[in-house]
Amino acid sequence: MIEVDLVEWIRKHASVGRSRIVLGIGDDCAIFRPRSGEDLLFTTDQLIEDVHFLGNASASTVGERALARSLSDIAAMGGEPRFCLVSLAVPKRKTQRWIEAFFRGLLSLARRTNTPLAGGDLAHDDKVHCDVMVCGAVAQRKALRRDGARPGDELYVSGRLGKPWNRRIQPRLALGQSLVGKATSCIDLSDGLSLDLHRLCIASRVSAELDRVPVEKGATLERALHGGEDYELLFTLPRGESPPPRTMRIGSIVRGPAGMVVFEGKQVKPHGYDHFRKT
Amino acid sequence: MIEVDLVEWIRKHASVGRSRIVLGIGDDCAIFRPRSGEDLLFTTDQLIEDVHFLGNASASTVGERALARSLSDIAAMGGEPRFCLVSLAVPKRKTQRWIEAFFRGLLSLARRTNTPLAGGDLAHDDKVHCDVMVCGAVAQRKALRRDGARPGDELYVSGRLGKPWNRRIQPRLALGQSLVGKATSCIDLSDGLSLDLHRLCIASRVSAELDRVPVEKGATLERALHGGEDYELLFTLPRGESPPPRTMRIGSIVRGPAGMVVFEGKQVKPHGYDHFRKT
Repeated sequence: MIEVDLVEWIRKHASVGRSRIVLGIGDDCAIFRPRSGEDLLFTTDQLIEDVHFLGNASASTVGERALARSLSDIAAMGGEPRFCLVSLAVPKRKTQRWIEAFFRGLLSLARRTNTPLAGGDLAHDDKVHCDVMVCGAVAQRKALRRDGARPGDELYVSGRLGKPWNRRIQPRLALGQSLVGKATSCIDLSDGLSLDLHRLCIASRVSAELDRVPVEKGATLERALHGGEDYELLFTLPRGESPPPRTMRIGSIVRGPAGMVVFEGKQVKPHGYDHFRKT
Repeated sequence: MIEVDLVEWIRKHASVGRSRIVLGIGDDCAIFRPRSGEDLLFTTDQLIEDVHFLGNASASTVGERALARSLSDIAAMGGEPRFCLVSLAVPKRKTQRWIEAFFRGLLSLARRTNTPLAGGDLAHDDKVHCDVMVCGAVAQRKALRRDGARPGDELYVSGRLGKPWNRRIQPRLALGQSLVGKATSCIDLSDGLSLDLHRLCIASRVSAELDRVPVEKGATLERALHGGEDYELLFTLPRGESPPPRTMRIGSIVRGPAGMVVFEGKQVKPHGYDHFRKT
């Protein structure tokens, strides 16, 4: 029974250590004991072969990326990761070694970010399909949301945009946590600045004026504006609030039609990766 | 932009009402505020076209079933559902109507069981692939686990076994909750009695003796023993504890090799659906 061995292998490597996971892999459900005074954050993201990565991508890179995308959502709300669940479907031709490499990549990032693997589901499918759920925590009522930007706020990003796809994602967890109680709104740039800023402005019922777009070396302005997969944080601070180190001011929030974004005197249409995104 | 309409449609129908969901669909994460004194239960289950259902299955049945399987895990731990997250990938040929019917089926069961839809992820793939995560809650330290069965306990099931596949699943939530503080162990029968009882006995380091196997009308003993997808609860009560109505005693827990199951004087090998199951 390959299954029992594999699950046992995952369980051993998923050490939940001194976390709040009371019961991890091996029962019908995982059991988590919340700390009082905290709100819990939940996000889930699919990573699908031939849609989000190519079949020849290394298993450990796929595993790491699957977790990193969800961690980026936790970062955007100012949360500390608490645990993750991993659903993985793989073709029968994939070896146990491939699956172990997938989990090695995922669990290496899980350890670095204190995100114990508490459970999940394994199945067979024609292509690799994974879905990673991450739970994070933040002090009650302190989560960074999209809907708090106000006219007069300054707009910042955590890094240059238009990064090459398929590079390693570093979820901005420490930055997100440092913005709690300071930033009026925050979102992670997964679908492109033009679309994600549009979303933030829709949620907050404001417009935005971009003054500059910091372009990654080797990338184009077009790519920095509309390309996705940057996984930087986009956030707003009240005017006068000093920004964290290594973040860049790119514009400001203004009164105007909800969702409108202006750059160099022209309206920027939301052109990012828009079909079928997060609910 | 079909996507925005669709997500808006889902958001409207996913009414989180008077739940503990502080922020539902529409931000990077959902926000949930735990009640103090409760442990939280987490489970996730994949439902994949051509693996778990056929392509011609009705969309609403698929949606309902996807949620029902995870709710059955919550029932097996004695939990009350708190919310769910739904990841769905569909082929481009599926219409918005198919997706809406999927969510109608899922949300109808969600309403009946008080399980608000708090978020999720939508994507395209060659086949329908869904993954439903459910969070449940139970009083601290009171979750029903697999590892508490003791020699002398009596063994029960919540219904006849060997049911036809693809029928409607009724997660045994009320029964599971009524067993809290009474049952010494519990598991849901998703992979067949022989395999799931074996698992319960492995976790509890005991053997089991079956006295009878209640077979569903029209099913065979073989199917009742080894067929999966019954979604009844299998649980143990200390001898003398009176069982809940409409449950059936099928045997008892005995000292012996961990995981051994005996029926009519012979060892029953775990033959259920065993490749690649829950982690």
